[in-house]
Amino acid sequence: MTPAERLERYAELAVRIGANVQRGQIVEVVGLVEHAPLARAVAGAAYRAGARYVDVTYGDAHVRRARIEHAPEDTLSTTPHWLLTREREFARARGAWIGITGDPEPELVGDLPGERVGKTRMVDLAEESMKTVNERLINWTGVAFPNEGWARAVFDEPDVERLWDVVAHAVRLDEPDPVAAWAAHVDRLDRRAAALDALQVDALRFRGPGTDLTVGLLEQSVWCGPRSYTAWGLPHVANMPTEEVFTTPDARRTEGVVRSTRPLVLYGTVVRGLEVRFEDGRIAAVDAGSGADVVRGQLATDERAACLGEVALVDGKSRVADAGVTFFDTLFDENVTSHVAYGSAYAEAVDGDPPEQGFNVSSVHTDFMIGGPEVDVDAVTRAGDVVPLLRDDVWQLSA
Amino acid sequence: MTPAERLERYAELAVRIGANVQRGQIVEVVGLVEHAPLARAVAGAAYRAGARYVDVTYGDAHVRRARIEHAPEDTLSTTPHWLLTREREFARARGAWIGITGDPEPELVGDLPGERVGKTRMVDLAEESMKTVNERLINWTGVAFPNEGWARAVFDEPDVERLWDVVAHAVRLDEPDPVAAWAAHVDRLDRRAAALDALQVDALRFRGPGTDLTVGLLEQSVWCGPRSYTAWGLPHVANMPTEEVFTTPDARRTEGVVRSTRPLVLYGTVVRGLEVRFEDGRIAAVDAGSGADVVRGQLATDERAACLGEVALVDGKSRVADAGVTFFDTLFDENVTSHVAYGSAYAEAVDGDPPEQGFNVSSVHTDFMIGGPEVDVDAVTRAGDVVPLLRDDVWQLSA
Repeated sequence: MTPAERLERYAELAVRIGANVQRGQIVEVVGLVEHAPLARAVAGAAYRAGARYVDVTYGDAHVRRARIEHAPEDTLSTTPHWLLTREREFARARGAWIGITGDPEPELVGDLPGERVGKTRMVDLAEESMKTVNERLINWTGVAFPNEGWARAVFDEPDVERLWDVVAHAVRLDEPDPVAAWAAHVDRLDRRAAALDALQVDALRFRGPGTDLTVGLLEQSVWCGPRSYTAWGLPHVANMPTEEVFTTPDARRTEGVVRSTRPLVLYGTVVRGLEVRFEDGRIAAVDAGSGADVVRGQLATDERAACLGEVALVDGKSRVADAGVTFFDTLFDENVTSHVAYGSAYAEAVDGDPPEQGFNVSSVHTDFMIGGPEVDVDAVTRAGDVVPLLRDDVWQLSA
Repeated sequence: MTPAERLERYAELAVRIGANVQRGQIVEVVGLVEHAPLARAVAGAAYRAGARYVDVTYGDAHVRRARIEHAPEDTLSTTPHWLLTREREFARARGAWIGITGDPEPELVGDLPGERVGKTRMVDLAEESMKTVNERLINWTGVAFPNEGWARAVFDEPDVERLWDVVAHAVRLDEPDPVAAWAAHVDRLDRRAAALDALQVDALRFRGPGTDLTVGLLEQSVWCGPRSYTAWGLPHVANMPTEEVFTTPDARRTEGVVRSTRPLVLYGTVVRGLEVRFEDGRIAAVDAGSGADVVRGQLATDERAACLGEVALVDGKSRVADAGVTFFDTLFDENVTSHVAYGSAYAEAVDGDPPEQGFNVSSVHTDFMIGGPEVDVDAVTRAGDVVPLLRDDVWQLSA
């Protein structure tokens, strides 16, 4: 497989299996300028799949850096109105969305005042996007583009080929029939989600070094695998790779402390050794070796950001974990180990309409990694039984 | 001057002298992904000048290529509605606009069906932008970013440094005080415009190999130099470099034939040896060594595209001409020699409100080069005198 073929195949996978682009759809592709080669390949694949119009929007972390450095304080969290218009028109058109990750400079703004970094986010736009996702108006996926800077972050050297090998393995491009391999993989995780549903989990407990966390679930919580559905029933795979099963917690019932087990890349900074204390469901304290002020700045932009919106279980044996590296990219790191996200919950992970109480709504959704070989995960069932789910990073249920 | 300093100085020039960005303004920067280094420098300079928000939008010619290749025929000229919203909100906000040229692949779509290439343009957006410019709602400029592909087009080798030298010379970055040098340059061309106004020109005549063209002017036509003004009186320099004086022709009074003297890069193709015949003010026939079908496809998108909207006079001795090359970039080639543009006229080049008759309104504005040492240019005055303006590429008036 030549590099060009590999790129084409990844783009095809993103379009056909990931977003599952339909004939006549508008397709939004969002990445950084450094992601142009994959964005172009995705645009071509989307048009070949029958897209009516492909809108590629490139972000630029250096331009964002200039905003953080120089823009007036009161403008940092604002959204230009036309971006909201775009989001709404796109949702109304029932578009497909393909996001590209793989940060070439994960620590680009690490030297700037953390609180300003955390505040520099388009709150209204993020809220609108979250609404679009939760009303299931679009079919979407996230993929990653290996590049020099990202490779340097992962391997301490700009070995893009090595990173491509890791990514290609993680997303099953190295399989003779990636589509069939994905179908089998999705089925396996769907069975795991079904087993958890059958267990009738009332709460999850994470215990390990620096971690003693209880995450209460809702009565309506359901466990989800990789396959999502739009409101009109179109299946798509929202992350490529994905190794998780996840559900929506009861935003009022998170208690205890949790220590992150992997660095978190957040807005061009690396948050290391994140420690969070929850009280009555809310984040009451944030500490970190570095980047705590970025998280605090972010939380300050949204009253509801401080509650959990997702809890996800991931075992230690997977195609993503095989590489044995830290990815400095949430799409990958969150699929190496269990994680939680503070901020908005996903409506697809509750049965029926999201309940008024306990289902968190926010403009934030930030996953951070809390699992690993030293972290035991148990389920407490509604019947009051304690059932081990993960020990030494190994999945304990039969499915 | 290091390459980094040179980039900074060009960005500063674009922001301070070109667009003349004001404190509190929103600034739109538009370029290709390949222009990211200059776009970033411009964003930084704009924020330092007090911009409230800098919106950098990157186009991608490869994504456009995919659209031309694959999108349904009936969608090629359409504009996503939110782009119109952006344009209107930006105009309402009285923003500043900085466009970046320097095409890394001027012939990227040269192998695709020309008519589809010419039709693939957002007609409604172009119309809206033209309206914004003509109501003088924004202060704007165009600059260029030297890059490998563009250098290859100019020199047949990717000598970016050589191209930077040429560009830096053309935009007076090689002056000890570029701002003062620009002020003197603007004054000189303003005097030339004033001399033409004093002459009371009724028509221009271009005569040379393959060219015998008469361009009638309006009674209200005025000659403009490099300095433009917004509706509220803010000066800006719309092109950097610029060597032209221009006016608005009477769209009904162009007659004869004209042969282009420089290749025209149009939508990712190179139109070579363009020959156009005008009858009663309208383009009646288009021929070319290559690319005629692209022009025809473009003209088919807009009934009014076939009339002239601008005529500009440029002598052969200037900082842009010094390099003695073909630039394959209209911002530069149009400042080496006299040119006309078919499509929309500029309101600033008429006295008072644009007249209902004879002032062309269109979504197109395409300049092509028609001057050179072999092309004589005369003015026919309202009094009936014939006054030589250009002979052997040398300006004939005293100013």
